[in-house]
Amino acid sequence: MKYFRKNIQNMPGYTPGEQPGEGEYIKLNTNENPYPPSPEVVDRIKSCLAHNFLSLYPPPLCQKLRQQISRVYGIPVEWILVGNGSDELLNLAFRAFLDPDDTVSYPVPTYTLYRTLAHIQEARVLEIPFPPDYSLPIELVDTSASLKILCNPNSPSGTFIATHMLETLVEKSDCPVLVDEAYVDFAGENALPLLNRYPNMLVARTLSKSFSLAGVRVGFVCAHPDMVEGLIKVKDSYNVNRLSQEAAIAALQDFPYMLCNVEKIRRIREKMTENFRNLGFEVFPSQANFILIRRKGNNLECLYQRLREEKILVRYFPELPDSLRITMGSAEEMDQLVQAVIRFSQEACL
Amino acid sequence: MKYFRKNIQNMPGYTPGEQPGEGEYIKLNTNENPYPPSPEVVDRIKSCLAHNFLSLYPPPLCQKLRQQISRVYGIPVEWILVGNGSDELLNLAFRAFLDPDDTVSYPVPTYTLYRTLAHIQEARVLEIPFPPDYSLPIELVDTSASLKILCNPNSPSGTFIATHMLETLVEKSDCPVLVDEAYVDFAGENALPLLNRYPNMLVARTLSKSFSLAGVRVGFVCAHPDMVEGLIKVKDSYNVNRLSQEAAIAALQDFPYMLCNVEKIRRIREKMTENFRNLGFEVFPSQANFILIRRKGNNLECLYQRLREEKILVRYFPELPDSLRITMGSAEEMDQLVQAVIRFSQEACL
Repeated sequence: MKYFRKNIQNMPGYTPGEQPGEGEYIKLNTNENPYPPSPEVVDRIKSCLAHNFLSLYPPPLCQKLRQQISRVYGIPVEWILVGNGSDELLNLAFRAFLDPDDTVSYPVPTYTLYRTLAHIQEARVLEIPFPPDYSLPIELVDTSASLKILCNPNSPSGTFIATHMLETLVEKSDCPVLVDEAYVDFAGENALPLLNRYPNMLVARTLSKSFSLAGVRVGFVCAHPDMVEGLIKVKDSYNVNRLSQEAAIAALQDFPYMLCNVEKIRRIREKMTENFRNLGFEVFPSQANFILIRRKGNNLECLYQRLREEKILVRYFPELPDSLRITMGSAEEMDQLVQAVIRFSQEACL
Repeated sequence: MKYFRKNIQNMPGYTPGEQPGEGEYIKLNTNENPYPPSPEVVDRIKSCLAHNFLSLYPPPLCQKLRQQISRVYGIPVEWILVGNGSDELLNLAFRAFLDPDDTVSYPVPTYTLYRTLAHIQEARVLEIPFPPDYSLPIELVDTSASLKILCNPNSPSGTFIATHMLETLVEKSDCPVLVDEAYVDFAGENALPLLNRYPNMLVARTLSKSFSLAGVRVGFVCAHPDMVEGLIKVKDSYNVNRLSQEAAIAALQDFPYMLCNVEKIRRIREKMTENFRNLGFEVFPSQANFILIRRKGNNLECLYQRLREEKILVRYFPELPDSLRITMGSAEEMDQLVQAVIRFSQEACL
């Protein structure tokens, strides 16, 4: 259609992971949490449905939620910005930092939304391949850009760049460095302790994974107050609805519940890593709530399809044809997955 | 901060209407609905809080909600796109249609968010003053632009451009024309019947006003499927959370409830128009859920402040110093407002 900007006209658009009807599949394709959120969340939502709760606009800056985040993570309120999922916060960063033809750089393979957001903003993309061990590519440190991103733990590999390496990247970069920590609660360390030394660093978090709240869309970014100020200018005024703000507050108040689920998922992850290695797959060491399994040189699309027929959804990326990304479900779900893979191992496709 | 794009660095940022703590004020400043949403909405939210409702990602395209909108308004599903409030849909249109230095044109005074969105996108703004009677400025029809917007009914005036005039604008414009119908349920006609004749027209709606759902953030745009396709490329995948999708479905299913509230608000609007005219104010003929009152040449900031001291919030715009915009509250709230204004009429400030 002639009305659109050329870059929009020409871009393919981002394809999110499949969201099938509920209960149809064992859903191991979009890194959701197999456990429900804290019961406090449901209680909170029910308790705030009184008279005009739904009819009034939400607090534009999510002040109470920011205060709760501040208490939990020990970061002042002005260093926090809440978004409609961390996707919105990524979106804001691209729009705030990147003029047309400015460069955004990040290691690949990673979250493919970064490329989509760059296309929308008409920014140049400098994608730097990870080394085979998924360590930090030195070129990312040395290159000049207007924005650098590191997804850490990385998706789809699950691998983690140690904080001291990340610090090198932030220290040597003369541009904003956004650390996308969507999966960091499943890892052993995180970047928040670096925050007050580096005004060019932004740490993005989400409640979608560890807090089991993908359905409510709440993420937040922690950064220097000047960063937060600038991003606020770009965001929609009422970007986070009232129910989601309350749900997030309740979830953060029940922090031990989240930690307990994370611990269960970590154990399942370790067990699955072992299982799939025993089945002859390469499994990258994961610090996330998923693992990337690989049969070097084989095409695993067939395995993906066979699992799909058995109502088990995992993630196949055409650009990584010898790999599958598998979200950690419940112990029962993972047992079914492993049994299915063992069965298919006898078939020609594997 | 040096990291930001120059246009972001230099822009002031949009200031939304004040959202004070609940129950503190009679809130007549941001055009919310004084009545709660349909009881069906609350029931629906409660009923869908089961096991993994909150932990799974929302349907990216709000398919069920689109189907419901399709049923209610008689528009095919592919002609509908749902957003996180209509603000998000405006935002998408600016990003989809406007390259830097492209022109967006709209009559003023109007919703000031348009200017903010243009600044973020680095677009040129051609603001065309409404004639004193708030009829359609012919210059808007004749001018060349990459996007034209008409808020209809307009805020803050409440005035309405008849559909046949609007049709002239759409017909003669060689660019997308976005009709922002946030308040149209309070008016006598709307632009949807024009839709299938003009592939360059977009009609934006919200559930915030007539459906009493400002807190849940749901809006939608109706346009040619090619328009919808293009806008989808720009939107975040999971832009509308699951609870809000369900709340909107329930609200649309109880359409008569909305109509009944709208009728009550219209009656209050007619009564208030008369009351304020009797008090010596000019009142623009409103087709929205608010009125703009005016004392030509007087500055009404003092009245705004005095009302605020009495815990009544109305909207004062510094660029319209002789006017106040007043949202239609409940009959009781409006009585209190009128009594307060009568009292202040004896004071020097009025």
